[in-house]
Amino acid sequence: MKLHGYFRSSASYRVRIALNLKGLSADHLPHHLRKGEQRDPAYLAINPQGLVPTLQDDHGAIITQSLAIIEWLEETHPEPPLLPKDPLRRAHVRGFAMALACDTHPVQKLKVLARLRQLGLPEEAVTGWAAWANREGLAACETLIASEPGPFCFGATPTMADLVPQLANARRFGVELEAYPRLLKAETAAKNVKAFADAAPDRQPDAE
Amino acid sequence: MKLHGYFRSSASYRVRIALNLKGLSADHLPHHLRKGEQRDPAYLAINPQGLVPTLQDDHGAIITQSLAIIEWLEETHPEPPLLPKDPLRRAHVRGFAMALACDTHPVQKLKVLARLRQLGLPEEAVTGWAAWANREGLAACETLIASEPGPFCFGATPTMADLVPQLANARRFGVELEAYPRLLKAETAAKNVKAFADAAPDRQPDAE
Repeated sequence: MKLHGYFRSSASYRVRIALNLKGLSADHLPHHLRKGEQRDPAYLAINPQGLVPTLQDDHGAIITQSLAIIEWLEETHPEPPLLPKDPLRRAHVRGFAMALACDTHPVQKLKVLARLRQLGLPEEAVTGWAAWANREGLAACETLIASEPGPFCFGATPTMADLVPQLANARRFGVELEAYPRLLKAETAAKNVKAFADAAPDRQPDAE
Repeated sequence: MKLHGYFRSSASYRVRIALNLKGLSADHLPHHLRKGEQRDPAYLAINPQGLVPTLQDDHGAIITQSLAIIEWLEETHPEPPLLPKDPLRRAHVRGFAMALACDTHPVQKLKVLARLRQLGLPEEAVTGWAAWANREGLAACETLIASEPGPFCFGATPTMADLVPQLANARRFGVELEAYPRLLKAETAAKNVKAFADAAPDRQPDAE
């Protein structure tokens, strides 16, 4: 398999964790987002959104969108499971993952921040925007798992909900994370798992 | 079941279509987003993101996030299926749905546009932002299904990919849709299905 990504992209980071948890290897093909390599015509032919990640399977088939890739990995390589068995529990795990992957990360992604700069907003307002988006999402997610004993987001083992490394983004934008103790507990649990550690941005070949 | 929603919310619209396609009924509980009813403490206790939709099942269990709700409906009420059987096909349907539900709609949602206004951007720039987000997403999606014969996004019957009524949003922000003939073809197919027609914003009890 090939994974088109970028070391700092949190959507790529999600898929790296999932691959590692499943014990799967992939060739990592970096696309430097700040240099605009994701808009190269050859890459756009693979991923018309011009976003990372994109997964290519062993037959060259293309899958875009991090959570769609993770669902595909779950269906084709079921062990260890990243979703619980009970449908309601699965819905809660997916709902949590999507609160970050749909409503938080896309609002603070590089392309959106670049657009804010184009509209003439000063750097301080742009960083403030990204911090706001992170706080909104993290506060909701903290509540969603407040009564979950953990230590992971939903239970004793990692699920799709843990594959959303949004806290790293939040830190980059200066968000203070003390307000989210349950999320920090899940992050600590994840940091002790090699699959998560190996997927970290600073461990990738294109890390700067 | 109860569906907390808002007539014009495209995420609520998605879930209404899925319920109708599955032949399921739900009590519709409207929350007027422009009046801020989604920030009412009683609603925040149900959905800490303060977003619609939220589904409550017959036992009162709560599910948030439109695509997580639709996946739950698919798992608990499999007929008619909204996802193909083949894992790769499923991934393509989900990837398309997420290109709109994750990267397009959240970037132009009411809350984000309100924030742009707070930052002092004039109304013209706010509408321009929403149109930009729609064009980016629709253009990518047009390419994703360019070689799909249809008439729906992926095949002869509706899938989760058709449950993303983003074209209605795009029109509201003045986007000209002639550039997306394949998406328009899928929309026409959907308009002829009662489940879609009954879910339309102007057919809801809270429509203005």
